Parts: sequence; C-alpha cells; structure tokens
Amino acid sequence: MQKESFVLKGNICYSQDKDHFRTVADGYLVCVDGISEGVYEELPEQYRNLPLIDCEDQLILPGLTDLHVHAPQYAFRGLGMDLELLDWLNTHTFPEESKYADLEYAKTAYQIFVEDMKNGPNTRACIFATLHVPATELLMDLLEETGMKTMVGKVNMDRNSPDILCEAGAEQSAADTAAWIEDVAGKYRNVQPILTPRFIPTCSDELMRLLKEIQKKYQLPVQSHLSENQGEIAWVKELCPSSAFYGDAYDQFGLFGGDCKTIMAHCVSSSDDEIRRMKERGVYIAHCPQSNTNLSSGIAPVRKFLDEGLRVGLGSDVAGGTVGSVFRAMADAIQVSKLRWRLTDDTMKPLTVQEAFYLGTVGGGSFFGKAGSFDAGYELDALVIDDSNLATPLKLSIPERVERVIYLSDDKNITKKFVGGHQIW
Amino acid sequence: MQKESFVLKGNICYSQDKDHFRTVADGYLVCVDGISEGVYEELPEQYRNLPLIDCEDQLILPGLTDLHVHAPQYAFRGLGMDLELLDWLNTHTFPEESKYADLEYAKTAYQIFVEDMKNGPNTRACIFATLHVPATELLMDLLEETGMKTMVGKVNMDRNSPDILCEAGAEQSAADTAAWIEDVAGKYRNVQPILTPRFIPTCSDELMRLLKEIQKKYQLPVQSHLSENQGEIAWVKELCPSSAFYGDAYDQFGLFGGDCKTIMAHCVSSSDDEIRRMKERGVYIAHCPQSNTNLSSGIAPVRKFLDEGLRVGLGSDVAGGTVGSVFRAMADAIQVSKLRWRLTDDTMKPLTVQEAFYLGTVGGGSFFGKAGSFDAGYELDALVIDDSNLATPLKLSIPERVERVIYLSDDKNITKKFVGGHQIW
Repeated sequence: MQKESFVLKGNICYSQDKDHFRTVADGYLVCVDGISEGVYEELPEQYRNLPLIDCEDQLILPGLTDLHVHAPQYAFRGLGMDLELLDWLNTHTFPEESKYADLEYAKTAYQIFVEDMKNGPNTRACIFATLHVPATELLMDLLEETGMKTMVGKVNMDRNSPDILCEAGAEQSAADTAAWIEDVAGKYRNVQPILTPRFIPTCSDELMRLLKEIQKKYQLPVQSHLSENQGEIAWVKELCPSSAFYGDAYDQFGLFGGDCKTIMAHCVSSSDDEIRRMKERGVYIAHCPQSNTNLSSGIAPVRKFLDEGLRVGLGSDVAGGTVGSVFRAMADAIQVSKLRWRLTDDTMKPLTVQEAFYLGTVGGGSFFGKAGSFDAGYELDALVIDDSNLATPLKLSIPERVERVIYLSDDKNITKKFVGGHQIW
Repeated sequence: MQKESFVLKGNICYSQDKDHFRTVADGYLVCVDGISEGVYEELPEQYRNLPLIDCEDQLILPGLTDLHVHAPQYAFRGLGMDLELLDWLNTHTFPEESKYADLEYAKTAYQIFVEDMKNGPNTRACIFATLHVPATELLMDLLEETGMKTMVGKVNMDRNSPDILCEAGAEQSAADTAAWIEDVAGKYRNVQPILTPRFIPTCSDELMRLLKEIQKKYQLPVQSHLSENQGEIAWVKELCPSSAFYGDAYDQFGLFGGDCKTIMAHCVSSSDDEIRRMKERGVYIAHCPQSNTNLSSGIAPVRKFLDEGLRVGLGSDVAGGTVGSVFRAMADAIQVSKLRWRLTDDTMKPLTVQEAFYLGTVGGGSFFGKAGSFDAGYELDALVIDDSNLATPLKLSIPERVERVIYLSDDKNITKKFVGGHQIW
C-alpha cells in the first residue's frame, strides 16, 4: 500500500533540537505529497479529508539513517572480530568482498542484506558495495525495489589490496566508475550513486585525482574512512608524507567536503587540526560505536564534535558492527560515551538519549536533505512501533517509551514503515 | 512435556575448557535421570531405547547462568540511565523497590520478569528480590513453577536507605530473614534462598554480625555487591575505617567466601589485595559489563581475574543492565574487554568468544554445582537454537554459528529449553 497524502495518528516523538524531544500524545502527523506538513494536537480542518491511519497507542518515530554500512560484509556479520582493522580487512573482509565478482553469489548475499534492512528501522543509508560494477548495480536494483532511500558506492581500490580485490590501475578504476555512473544515471527514483574511494591506503594519488574529476563532472557526494585505527593513521602518514594529517590527504585532492558533500566514517583519533578542517569543510562524521568497539579501535569524541558544531550521524558499519539497526547504534553511542568519560576524559560528558536519537534521525538524515524530522517541509520517513511486548507495570511517558525502544526493541516491534511519504510495508 | 531420560540429537557445542569449544556435528547428548551421560558422535548401544529428540540442523548449547540480577528492577529496565550508581539508587531504584510492599504490585511486576526470563536463554540465576518477605516468597513461588533453577534473596538494608525502603533496625532485619528462611525451608524443588545483604553502605555492623549467625545456622550462600563505583568505595572506607579494603568489610564478618559460598557482583575497581583475598576465599565474581557501562562505573579487569584463577561468571544486573539474556552479557564482556585493552591497559588481552561463552555457562553455572556443561555428571541444562533466520550465504562451522548466536540471536531463536533434565518448554 502506498499513499502520498495521509494522516498518521498516534504517540509522536521526534527531535525538536539535539537536546529536546518534541512529543505529542494522540497526535496527528500530516503528510501531503510525501512531505510532512507538521505534527498537530488537533487535526486542522484542511486535512480532515485525508486518509487517516490510526496507530492507536503505538509510537510514531522518524525513520533512521545509517550513514555507514558495507553491504557485502553483511554475510559475515557477527564473525571473526578478534582482529584489529588492517588484519581484519586482509583476513576476513577482502576475501569475502572478492566473491562479488560472481553475480550469482552477489544476488544471494545482497538479497539477504536488502531484505533485513527493509525489515529494520533504517529508512535511509549510505552504503559501500564492492569494486565490482555489475554487483553494485544489482545491489542498487534490489534497493530501489524496497522504497528505501539510499546512496550506494562502487568501491575504488587500486593499491595495497590483494590480487583478488584490486583494480588494474587508477585509469581502469576511474573508467569503471564513470561507466557505472553513466549506466545508472536517471535509472532510479530511490537510489543514487556516491563516490567511494575505500580509504587512502588503497587509493593511489592518481586515482584520487581522477575521482575528483569525476566528482566535479557528475556533482556526486563522497564517502570514505578516516582516522579509525592507529596503525591505519601511521600508514597514511607514510603513504602521504606531504599531508598535514589523515584528512588532509583527502583534502589535497578536493575530496573532503566543501563543494563536495562528504561522509567520513569513524574519526576515532582525529587530531584537533583534523576536527577543525572537518568543521570548515562541513564534512559529515559517521560515528560507528559498535564497530569501533569490535575492532578495538577506541571511542570517538562525539561530545567534542557536537560542542564544536560538526555534522554527525550514526553508522552501523556492518560488519565491523554486528547489528544493522540504528536504534542499536544510538544505545551503543550512549554507552561508549560513558566509558570514554569514565576512562579517558572526564571533561566530555556522556551523550544523552536525546542527543543519540538526534544523531540517528536528523543528524544522519540531513545528509539526504530534509530527512529525519517531522517538522513541516521534511520528507516523511516514519516508523510505527508497537512496544507492548516490552512489558512493565509502570505507566511510561512517551520519552520513556522511546528510551526503551532504543535499548530493547527489535525489528519485530515495527508495524509500519514509511519512506519519503510511501508506506513500504 | 517433561522427560528425565532422553537423547538430544543435533549440532552440539559446549566448553571443553575456558579456551576451547567442544563441538559435535549431528551428535548425541544423552540425559539419564536428569544428568548428562556425555556427548557422542555415535549413539552408544545402551542408550538406543531412550526417547530421541531430533533437533536436526539446530544448535544444542548448555543453558546460561545469570549470576546477578535484580527482579524488582526489571520493571524499569532501559530507563533512567543517565546517573551514576549512588544517585541512580536513590532516584530510580529505591522508590521502585519500595512498591513491593504491595503484594498486588509485586505480582504484576514479578510475573513479567519471570515470564521473560523463562522465554530467554538463562536456565539458572542468582536473584535479588527486595526487603519484603511476602513479595520475595511470591517471587520464589512464581520461579518454582517455571522449572528454572534459581537462588533468591530477600534483601537486607537497615541504614543509609530512604524511609520507604529501610528495615527497622538490625534485629528486625535478621528476624525477618530467619522467619523467611524457615518459611521456605523444604518448600521448593527448584528455588533456594540466598542471603542478600544489599551492600556495606546499607548494612550496619550489627546486621552483618546477625546475618553471619543466620548464614552459619542454615548454611546458606551469600550474594552482594563489591567495588562497583568510586563513590561507593570511598563511602565504604568512611563507614568501615577498620577495613583494609571494601571486600575486607565483608570478610571481617565472615561473609566473604571460605565456608560461606559467596557471589560478589561487579569488582570493577578491586585492588590487588582485594583480588588476592577473593582468590583465597574462593569468592565468585559476577561480571556485569552492561551495567558497568550504563552506570559509567568502568570496566572490570576480567582478564586479570582469569589469569589469576579466580571464579568468574556473568550477570545481566538488570536494571543497571537493560537486557536479561546472558548471550548479550557474553557479547558485552568481549566488547568492553576490547575497550579496556585499547584505552586502559594494553597488557590485558581482550576476552575471546570461547572465554565469554565459558563464563556464561560453566563459569556461573558452577555456583550451582555441576551445571553449564554437557560433560558426564552435569545436570542437563540445554538450549535448542534455530539460527536459520540469521541468514548468510556462507557455510558456517558450529563455532561460527555459536559466535553469531552470541552477537545476533534473541529469545525467539530458542525452540526448546531444558533445565536439570526437564524440558520446561
């Protein structure tokens, strides 16, 4: 069932700003032509002829955005997390990603990823595929059908990669990328391409130069990795001796925000200079707390990012992270911020529930434009959530119910899912 | 359906020792009169007349033990975790626990706790109730019916507690405790009482002396809290100036292992002297990683406990922890050990999957005697787990499937549950 204009009635909660929920019990969320017209305590006269979906005592929350996830790694989520980043890539990740040269394998694997994502609370995602163009387009086809809004990147990697997963030089990588972009141009309503140099260690200077040309020509956004792990940071310093810091190695090629909308995943160990540059360039940070824990990378200073006004969203980073739901990423973000405060730096206060919710909705959603809020003018992404199985004798407020959804709910609590004004199930 | 003697056939995995799984694909787990006769690749002749339960491709794992959980706090799991321990107790915990003076409220709330625990992977638990004897006995009645094996404690607290939740002096507290023990003596097959001084700050010296008398008279085990939080530790030092360290304050009253089987929850900040004393006395440590994270307590040095040969199991510590499943506690234990290694002390290697599984099965189970293993002679606690919804194109080994169950499964993956040789559902 799809509806462009309708009214959802129920217990509504979304971020008024990063520190506050706005909640309306038995409220009305109005959607006209896929766009929110806002939330009302009483339904205004002019909307009374719209179809009304009565969600009764259920919660109505904005859809969540996963700013960083690797689709081909979903196959081995929850496995092999006894290694740090660089060994983990060589031992588990690269061999698995090489299988996506086989379109049949890719189909089997990507169908599982797409189906599970469709059943979960994320309505939008920025997704790494692999270097293989046919498998990447297959993934885009599958995602398109779901109705979710996604950006998908064919990965670029032309050095320091195993033979089974390395492109034949910068020019070949760039040519494949341009051909892919031409091939998918205008093809999808819900899926867009995003340039995806894997990370500095696997991308030659020549490749980065060519990707910047492609980025300018097609006006594409960019996603990559930054300052996740100490060994990685030291390696980048070695590979790019002229860079002032890791992020500067992207910036030297014009692939670090500014006129080029950019997500950098992790930023666990970003220097003050790097943080300043990210702010200047408007770079989005994808904070991936579970992955940074599983790969023993550390804990990113999200409090600092927020205090300094940087743009931050949440990423599951499957399969560095095991769980795709951004509700889990919200809980993990709060939890690791407490450990960081206790163990590393007691001047940086832990994240609040409100802040984590903001990061997982508006924080990441804004990379897509107006998404992640129910304020008027936003694309209407909504989750209807039945939390009645999370039984308690207490009478809970709406914010308390939302807090429990973050910590305790799973996909089965979701009863309806809307993306961009469409009910996708 | 209950069976005392039967054979389970399926993909069996349990801890051979703390560093190794023993796995048998399509193996036979034999139960005679509620006790394991071991695991076999081929079913020995003498067991071929026993009823055989064919679990096909499912996993068969030992039941899990939750060494530390607060039943009356289950009502507010996932709520109000923006405070540290002492403020959290006063703001959320004590007011909620005071409601258990009302037996009707207790019934509503405890039914939810017991039902959810029954549906989850834990087969055994050491449980704090409240100070109220009638509600504690009600909880024991409800638990008895489930078939799970539990130890339940009426809580003792006669000082530094709010009027709504404070016993009227040491003698009253001790008298209530003795009356409770007499009242439940011989009443249950599955539930036993355990002495439960809440923690040093809420138990006067006189109360501790009287509890030791009760402990000796009835030969009861003991559970309490230890070295969870810096503010708590400093307070104990103030309250017990003669104690060499926090644990010594229990030990001075003979309630710290030795002839008195004891669980101490947390031990996040135990000194070397305290660790040494716990080892000497054979004290069990209930490691509660999620709670220690949520309440910003820190990360306990479990690697050190294991290297020094201490007894360690896992606790959910609901509602400091939000999730009751000890599978989640295993995952959390691994994850926080990685952050501890990265942020605090890189000489202490992170826990392995095998170690975490051991802690959640045999580690805690051994507090109940022979529980948590499938070796011959152990009480037969088993979970049959259908992991087919955790879809992947990969062909996984049994240890890999177990790793994913730890990280990704929920209660709905469990298809059968056996405790002490009885199938409880």
